[in-house]
Amino acid sequence: MEAIPLLTLKRLPQYLEALNRLQEADLKMVPATKIAKSTGVHMTQVRKDLAYTGVVGTPKIGHNVDELIQAIEQCLNWNDISSCFLVGVGQLGKALMGYSELSKKGLRIIAAFDSNPDLAGTYYQGIQIHSMAKLSNLLSRLHIHIGILTVPAEVAQEIADDMIAGGIIAIWNFTPARLHVPEHVIVENIDMSSSLAVLSRRVAESLHQSNS
Amino acid sequence: MEAIPLLTLKRLPQYLEALNRLQEADLKMVPATKIAKSTGVHMTQVRKDLAYTGVVGTPKIGHNVDELIQAIEQCLNWNDISSCFLVGVGQLGKALMGYSELSKKGLRIIAAFDSNPDLAGTYYQGIQIHSMAKLSNLLSRLHIHIGILTVPAEVAQEIADDMIAGGIIAIWNFTPARLHVPEHVIVENIDMSSSLAVLSRRVAESLHQSNS
Repeated sequence: MEAIPLLTLKRLPQYLEALNRLQEADLKMVPATKIAKSTGVHMTQVRKDLAYTGVVGTPKIGHNVDELIQAIEQCLNWNDISSCFLVGVGQLGKALMGYSELSKKGLRIIAAFDSNPDLAGTYYQGIQIHSMAKLSNLLSRLHIHIGILTVPAEVAQEIADDMIAGGIIAIWNFTPARLHVPEHVIVENIDMSSSLAVLSRRVAESLHQSNS
Repeated sequence: MEAIPLLTLKRLPQYLEALNRLQEADLKMVPATKIAKSTGVHMTQVRKDLAYTGVVGTPKIGHNVDELIQAIEQCLNWNDISSCFLVGVGQLGKALMGYSELSKKGLRIIAAFDSNPDLAGTYYQGIQIHSMAKLSNLLSRLHIHIGILTVPAEVAQEIADDMIAGGIIAIWNFTPARLHVPEHVIVENIDMSSSLAVLSRRVAESLHQSNS
């Protein structure tokens, strides 16, 4: 399986979003220029990125919309549902447990874990919450490869280590902690704190400038 | 007000996280080496970043923990609560409306907006939801500068344009859409789709490799 470059991978969901809209509008064929226009990505880049899907366009007519959607979903493995575990049933964890968009993007949370004993055995959004003690056993029994991490930052590394010991090879990290993991483990960070830091500071700088 | 480099800004919340833990453990002074160790950032970089806070350390002893926390929060403008509007009360919007961490990081959602007429006039987590028709009037009346965007991708640009016309200078964009905005407007993207695309593909590549 060919390794698709990082930035191409990050753009594929944007193309998919645009293509889904074109499909809803009953468009059958789409030129790269149209995808470029609606995503704001340069046409040359769109062409390069789409080449990774293996779908070949017709000159002056473009790509078949249905075929391209299917090919991108296959590239991203989104047509295949992967089961995953979520650890840390706080506000953010609960939000993700209720976020149905995830399953459209190939990810299904099949069990959750939390250190709060009151939560053990309860359900949220139809997903059972287990005690942390059960994590390692369930990970290996169910052959789970992906873990979502929504615990407090101070325990993130420790829990990540437990996940990896249990067979997790990919962690979707929503904590501000930077995880240290073995080379074979994939970590994707969603860092709301960093993003908010940039936003808040830039606003302060901007307001300060316009007042001075 | 000095412009702090992007990557420094993104790291400041990590230092803050580490410092808060040290403060809880009753530590008074902290050397940069300790911050470096607990965040995984190189010591030289930690020193450079901390210089932007204006707090001066003592050789061999380090920085005063309380002073450093306060200085970082001031750099990020997190000690000052900014009011903001949220547009798009779907699953993600609701999750953010219930996410109390935001107010600890200087952001308070004071009103929400949605195109669904059934939601207009209702409350969620104590925050009133208004019809879209009220957005522009309330934006200018309340002098709001920050908008959180959690609408479907296909209307993101249009709503962003409305926000900016009403006086918004910073958009926290949770949609997969890439926004085109005037130069003075700050956009910070939280792109869960791109992140999930990378994660899913890398897992597929990794599993494929170990099976072959």
